[in-house]
Amino acid sequence: MLVLHYASIDPHSRFVRLALAEHGLEAEFIEERLSERRRELLELNPAGTLPVLRDNDAVICGANVIADYLDETRGQELGSRRLLPGNPVERAEVRRLLHWFNGKFYDEVTNYLVTEKFIKRARIGGDAAPDVTAIRAAKANIRYHLRYISHLVSKRDFLGGDWLSFADFAAAAHLSSADYFGDVPWDEELNAKSWYARIKSRPGFRPLLSERIPGVPPPPHYADLDF
Amino acid sequence: MLVLHYASIDPHSRFVRLALAEHGLEAEFIEERLSERRRELLELNPAGTLPVLRDNDAVICGANVIADYLDETRGQELGSRRLLPGNPVERAEVRRLLHWFNGKFYDEVTNYLVTEKFIKRARIGGDAAPDVTAIRAAKANIRYHLRYISHLVSKRDFLGGDWLSFADFAAAAHLSSADYFGDVPWDEELNAKSWYARIKSRPGFRPLLSERIPGVPPPPHYADLDF
Repeated sequence: MLVLHYASIDPHSRFVRLALAEHGLEAEFIEERLSERRRELLELNPAGTLPVLRDNDAVICGANVIADYLDETRGQELGSRRLLPGNPVERAEVRRLLHWFNGKFYDEVTNYLVTEKFIKRARIGGDAAPDVTAIRAAKANIRYHLRYISHLVSKRDFLGGDWLSFADFAAAAHLSSADYFGDVPWDEELNAKSWYARIKSRPGFRPLLSERIPGVPPPPHYADLDF
Repeated sequence: MLVLHYASIDPHSRFVRLALAEHGLEAEFIEERLSERRRELLELNPAGTLPVLRDNDAVICGANVIADYLDETRGQELGSRRLLPGNPVERAEVRRLLHWFNGKFYDEVTNYLVTEKFIKRARIGGDAAPDVTAIRAAKANIRYHLRYISHLVSKRDFLGGDWLSFADFAAAAHLSSADYFGDVPWDEELNAKSWYARIKSRPGFRPLLSERIPGVPPPPHYADLDF
């Protein structure tokens, strides 16, 4: 029995939800609040971060670690659709991009947006004003990441190579969180936009796109597959 | 032919040097300056970070990605001394700690110390004063990490389980960088100290402990195996 501790807007949780869906895996979902660290969650993951996957008694912490765990325990069943595919060099390229999006993109873009536009308002009595400098930095940085995505898909069919891999779902997960807040300048990078349209049409994306933060509606194109 | 692009004080580079040594692998070492991003390095690793491992034509970027690559290409030769050992759950625990030390510990401790105490002075014309707030944060945070190491080795023989793993070398690599600057309060956590003494005595540690930053001597105990 799989149980995922997640938060809806958290890009790392989104990545794992997409990965579970691609593996055809059902799970029980336990929603955590990003604005607090429950003691029970800290007992599962001393870092206090999401997502955490429980597989019966096993506790697997963190997006990249969960990706490797899913590949090691369920990857072979996917055959040629395996998300960490190929030889060790090709796998290293997918892992490099997993770190890029779950690490660098998060540090430079999604962490700022989720903290300033969601966590600060979600805290009890949360009336801290968003830090406009942080939001401005995220909006500047995302342009550079979109350009990098356009660059990668101009050379390859997908981000990590010529097959769909964990790299695509990590990038799409972070972009979907930023897109909820209307902070992705899609029209500046049409290659990145058409790659995202392909990933966004995967069935596993549907539940993510249907969820709403109360009082914070996403832009009209957010859930539109032909945006 | 393996080639490692590294910087001496960089904890992620130290981790990979220790991992190469444990695998009995020879490599050519190319020292990079942490204070500048050479164009040739950016062409190898668009993130501009160290370390980068070249294995003939393959380019493997980043400490955790290199660890998985070494395990996948050379791990079996180590037999029972494999550094990413065991079943998928045990491997996930080693990877969780790899992220802990190469990610969280770096963000909270070593990045501050290396930036403030080394990179700022190494820049051409570098006379920027160290940010004392950042150094103070690193010194406060390291206590919490040392306590966590003591906690782990009170339950297990090594950090990731009852065998030496990549987790030990990641933690020891970061601690050795902090220790160079005299910023590890060893006497507060004797369990962590005796675990570190065991890892520090591995032959692969010797070259690291013999290197010096011109004008910045380490404390007397730094290279002492019975510190």
